[in-house]
Amino acid sequence: MAGNTFGTAFRLTSFGESHGPAIGGVIDGCPSGLTLDIDRVQQDLSYRRPGQSAITTSRNESDQIEFLSGIFEGVTTGAPIAFITRNHDIRPSDYSVIENVYRPSHADYTWEAKYGLRDHRGSGRASARETLARVVAGSVAAQFLEINGISTLAYTKSIGTINAEITEPLKREDIYNSIARCPDTIATEEIEQVLTVLRSKGDTTGGIIECTIKNLPAGLGEPVFDKLNADLAKAMMSINAAKGFEIGSGFKASSMKGSEHNDPFVNKGGTITTSTNNSGGIQGGLSNGQPVVFRVAFKPISTIMIEQDTVNSSGEPEKLVVKGRHDPCVVPRAVIIVESMANLVVADHMLRQRMSKI
Amino acid sequence: MAGNTFGTAFRLTSFGESHGPAIGGVIDGCPSGLTLDIDRVQQDLSYRRPGQSAITTSRNESDQIEFLSGIFEGVTTGAPIAFITRNHDIRPSDYSVIENVYRPSHADYTWEAKYGLRDHRGSGRASARETLARVVAGSVAAQFLEINGISTLAYTKSIGTINAEITEPLKREDIYNSIARCPDTIATEEIEQVLTVLRSKGDTTGGIIECTIKNLPAGLGEPVFDKLNADLAKAMMSINAAKGFEIGSGFKASSMKGSEHNDPFVNKGGTITTSTNNSGGIQGGLSNGQPVVFRVAFKPISTIMIEQDTVNSSGEPEKLVVKGRHDPCVVPRAVIIVESMANLVVADHMLRQRMSKI
Amino acid sequence: MAGNTFGTAFRLTSFGESHGPAIGGVIDGCPSGLTLDIDRVQQDLSYRRPGQSAITTSRNESDQIEFLSGIFEGVTTGAPIAFITRNHDIRPSDYSVIENVYRPSHADYTWEAKYGLRDHRGSGRASARETLARVVAGSVAAQFLEINGISTLAYTKSIGTINAEITEPLKREDIYNSIARCPDTIATEEIEQVLTVLRSKGDTTGGIIECTIKNLPAGLGEPVFDKLNADLAKAMMSINAAKGFEIGSGFKASSMKGSEHNDPFVNKGGTITTSTNNSGGIQGGLSNGQPVVFRVAFKPISTIMIEQDTVNSSGEPEKLVVKGRHDPCVVPRAVIIVESMANLVVADHMLRQRMSKI
Amino acid sequence: MAGNTFGTAFRLTSFGESHGPAIGGVIDGCPSGLTLDIDRVQQDLSYRRPGQSAITTSRNESDQIEFLSGIFEGVTTGAPIAFITRNHDIRPSDYSVIENVYRPSHADYTWEAKYGLRDHRGSGRASARETLARVVAGSVAAQFLEINGISTLAYTKSIGTINAEITEPLKREDIYNSIARCPDTIATEEIEQVLTVLRSKGDTTGGIIECTIKNLPAGLGEPVFDKLNADLAKAMMSINAAKGFEIGSGFKASSMKGSEHNDPFVNKGGTITTSTNNSGGIQGGLSNGQPVVFRVAFKPISTIMIEQDTVNSSGEPEKLVVKGRHDPCVVPRAVIIVESMANLVVADHMLRQRMSKI
Repeated sequence: MAGNTFGTAFRLTSFGESHGPAIGGVIDGCPSGLTLDIDRVQQDLSYRRPGQSAITTSRNESDQIEFLSGIFEGVTTGAPIAFITRNHDIRPSDYSVIENVYRPSHADYTWEAKYGLRDHRGSGRASARETLARVVAGSVAAQFLEINGISTLAYTKSIGTINAEITEPLKREDIYNSIARCPDTIATEEIEQVLTVLRSKGDTTGGIIECTIKNLPAGLGEPVFDKLNADLAKAMMSINAAKGFEIGSGFKASSMKGSEHNDPFVNKGGTITTSTNNSGGIQGGLSNGQPVVFRVAFKPISTIMIEQDTVNSSGEPEKLVVKGRHDPCVVPRAVIIVESMANLVVADHMLRQRMSKI
Repeated sequence: MAGNTFGTAFRLTSFGESHGPAIGGVIDGCPSGLTLDIDRVQQDLSYRRPGQSAITTSRNESDQIEFLSGIFEGVTTGAPIAFITRNHDIRPSDYSVIENVYRPSHADYTWEAKYGLRDHRGSGRASARETLARVVAGSVAAQFLEINGISTLAYTKSIGTINAEITEPLKREDIYNSIARCPDTIATEEIEQVLTVLRSKGDTTGGIIECTIKNLPAGLGEPVFDKLNADLAKAMMSINAAKGFEIGSGFKASSMKGSEHNDPFVNKGGTITTSTNNSGGIQGGLSNGQPVVFRVAFKPISTIMIEQDTVNSSGEPEKLVVKGRHDPCVVPRAVIIVESMANLVVADHMLRQRMSKI
Repeated sequence: MAGNTFGTAFRLTSFGESHGPAIGGVIDGCPSGLTLDIDRVQQDLSYRRPGQSAITTSRNESDQIEFLSGIFEGVTTGAPIAFITRNHDIRPSDYSVIENVYRPSHADYTWEAKYGLRDHRGSGRASARETLARVVAGSVAAQFLEINGISTLAYTKSIGTINAEITEPLKREDIYNSIARCPDTIATEEIEQVLTVLRSKGDTTGGIIECTIKNLPAGLGEPVFDKLNADLAKAMMSINAAKGFEIGSGFKASSMKGSEHNDPFVNKGGTITTSTNNSGGIQGGLSNGQPVVFRVAFKPISTIMIEQDTVNSSGEPEKLVVKGRHDPCVVPRAVIIVESMANLVVADHMLRQRMSKI
Repeated sequence: MAGNTFGTAFRLTSFGESHGPAIGGVIDGCPSGLTLDIDRVQQDLSYRRPGQSAITTSRNESDQIEFLSGIFEGVTTGAPIAFITRNHDIRPSDYSVIENVYRPSHADYTWEAKYGLRDHRGSGRASARETLARVVAGSVAAQFLEINGISTLAYTKSIGTINAEITEPLKREDIYNSIARCPDTIATEEIEQVLTVLRSKGDTTGGIIECTIKNLPAGLGEPVFDKLNADLAKAMMSINAAKGFEIGSGFKASSMKGSEHNDPFVNKGGTITTSTNNSGGIQGGLSNGQPVVFRVAFKPISTIMIEQDTVNSSGEPEKLVVKGRHDPCVVPRAVIIVESMANLVVADHMLRQRMSKI
């Protein structure tokens, strides 16, 4: 069974290759009656667009979204919401060099092993351009969540060895005003410098994105396999270049003691809450009403402009030199993708939650 | 939609509460013709049993497995394989103290928020005893994978601040001969000491499990959402107390450069392979033929024998002192669970892979 | 992907062979808070039991149901509800004659073709005994539907060429007091006579069951594939020996005119309803608030006591004479099965309906 | 959970409203390596087009299909295959009369009950125009099945009271050369006359379509719920206006005896086959290698040009007179739709079958 559908109740089926006619998706399960702000979808989509600065790729993707169904007079009807964006600025000749050569740490070899053939143009379906559909669907999900008071916010926590210091509550504008999607302005500057150097050398680096989901009702998640943290983990690890996921205390928890890790319950003005949040807002796989906080680690983009050793499809050694338009770091563009996938997971569980009691 | 089914083609539906009549599951999709070694299932199950030493709980769980269907003359028939193990050694009175009190960092509060009520006896369905069904199904999956030459091996990489040093190839007997499930005998000794001290203080600690899957064919995984790493992440994060997941280079990748992270393809005696394995055996979401290597971080068990602040179901402050039988660390028992979940994921993708080409 | 799970939100996973240790199932998705009347489940189960009269088989199936999970102090918890019934009165020697011979119009040949082997004892998983799990789950579903005011009632409409005349509203007691499950007492007598004769000749016959579901809210069903009538059709055609399904006017509609078939909307005391019900309670795939009425045709049971021509697994001609315990007609026992499957479908759609609006 | 996806392994997700921007779908699970004949898809699509004669509607739907993904150099890649066709010839003003009035036996009332609102233009998502996506996907499925030697053929068996006499093997050209999709030329003439008269009166009629699937391997279908006949029943009953489904002997089986209904196995030149086919090619829910034969009953189209009694959304009585472009009978256009849905079911089960044995 193929794997291009995400979610159970609020579902995205995604399609499209980097250099095919279009990228798009179908959202099935968005409830009727939601007034959809299309401009906001377009705005969210712009956040993942490359070509925005010196530190992202120069490919010019206008990515004008077109909705094809499921909306009547600006309101969702309960019917599936399909959307596409046409691919422009396609230069297939850029990719002939990799037609028969496997780029290291890229999907070329594995996709060919799976399917017996591959669309090599711009990595085809394996291209990160596929995430465009996630952002559109995530933006629709966000608008559904907003009427329930829920908001999600991701930001760049680190790039390479540079870490953001967050001292104040996160604000969306602080994040998206930063070219690095980092609300710490000093870190942003450092990141820009580092990425500029890397870019000039044709090298790349990784980073970490942190995401917070606020105002979740307690009880979201489905025991025992579809725990909220389990579904978030899958969502995040399905993003290109993701190598790690942790929630709340995360890997640090492995060296903590129970007596310091446990989050005591307290009564704050009539509401049951916890005085610490090592749990990252999830206990026993279900939301506890505290902010859900998780982090995703991304590897350096595998497409580098430096000569590499590899083999071709006949198994013969090759020296590979890739040319073209590529980011030195995926993280700034991935911030909105992390946010979108989180919104898809939460929208799904908000709907599933409706079935928990008689 | 409830979440007690795991997998798509090779599926486990699990059921049972800690102190109900039985724990069990139904495996649907196991192909016909597999000669099943029931003793081995029972053996694998024994690896997750508490009561094995001073460092695990003293609850006496015999956990005799009974298969109810799907096997005829020792061979799978293609029909669903159901199994149960009866719950014994149940002392419900142990749990009356928590009937109306929320244990910190436990599932009491969130499950009650979700369902409006809860079976408080031994945490009910939220108990780690539920993982018993995962181990049985995982053991069946392992036997299916074995005829395809695939083997999975997990071990304790760290407990608290003690890290295992692995210098030689992992051997199953070295792992399971260690009470800590750690093939490093020196680390095992240190772990025993640390856990004995923690136990005497009523405290707990966390740890990390590493797992390796060998001899996977290239191409396993389903783009773009059901990537092999995404499904592994979900599987692992669905285990009680898991807080983090990483594959290959993992979180370390975030501070690496592309030029050092990329795994060059090489031709080793006619086989295309890679000279390093930062990818952890997965590229573009699909296996590349190298060993799949991942780590799971576990938090300290939340049930501690130390007095804690919390609230009751009326929101009033309470001092909680739990008594009973509890481990100082979940990690040794979770090793076989990690292995089992990995086997379920791989068996699922081995079957799904059969549909990738005409 | 194997097919032993039915439903999306309210799901039954069924397991067990006729002559294995047990038949059972797991209901996942039953909401928490439902007070379950176990006696009623046992009562419903007794309605499908053979051995009740001269016209049904003499196999003595006590079928004591045991619930294993998901219920705490008599109330559903939201956790999966597992149940089993042990197989008794098993005489495997009865079946050695068919070990290598394919019974005409039975599942022997096709199951062996699919799986490469088969459990021949009492047809194994292909036995109608499997429907036991459907009745248990259907009875749980019925209790969930009842708190929503919904009731389902099936009865024998015809057996062979004998048709029931229904002049008054159906009553459950009239149906289940009849050994033929037919509220028309005259037809019941005729049926008994016909079946007694058939039984003495070792022959069998078919029949038709009609089912009515009352008090459905308007709007149940999920466009465009999971229409209520589509899911009912699948549910019914998945029952052993079912050969046809029709809803409302059914096959008769094929020769009607639109002007006579259309059901005019009328306002009855403030409620929008229809003056006729050719639609059978479903329009555009969704319930319209009128009674849902459908019929299921069953073929004669294929196991007859008359000598038949067939082949063995080597393809050689054989004369087959089956001995044992068999019904002359499946219909009386299938009435509760039809009812149960209908309840599973409606319970599923009642839950899914909760997600249709924001 | 919404219901716009059909199939498990070979899946169609469909979208689009009659008068929205486009109708389309996404096929996920089509194996890689299939050389796709796009002209044939377009040809199949033309078979469901209205406006072909006096007996079908005069709406001019060019329905040019555009494939957006999943195909590279004419061959499927294993990636999802998305397609759209733009809606043209849209005249929304035609539909203002029904904005607040419920057409009898149409989906207006029920969809509004479900979603709280509706896109009334041309019935929106409830329009039969939705089936366009089914035909495209079915045509792709047919091409996959063809390389496995499987072929599907449906035809008009009856319209109103006129029945086709089939004396020779069905040929595709005989069916599609008939404007009524009926290979019996005499019946075709009679149908044309009857429909012309009905059309002039603004009335409609129903009919029956029979479909045969040839060269299926034995063993297709998934016990116990996803039997081949069960999935076919669902597929057919999900088509607009379908009221009944029967397989093989169908409803007639209800009055037959086992001794006349059973299909004896015989050895025909080394192949195990049956001498009769009352089973309709399916035994125990699995294909037995004989032709699968089933029938679908369709009601008369509910949109008639005759004045009807109904109510508006305030519940007030209304006289409804619909104008516009409508068929007197859905059956001729539904022939290719029945065929397409059958192909989707069989393609799905051909893939699922790959997982039945180790």
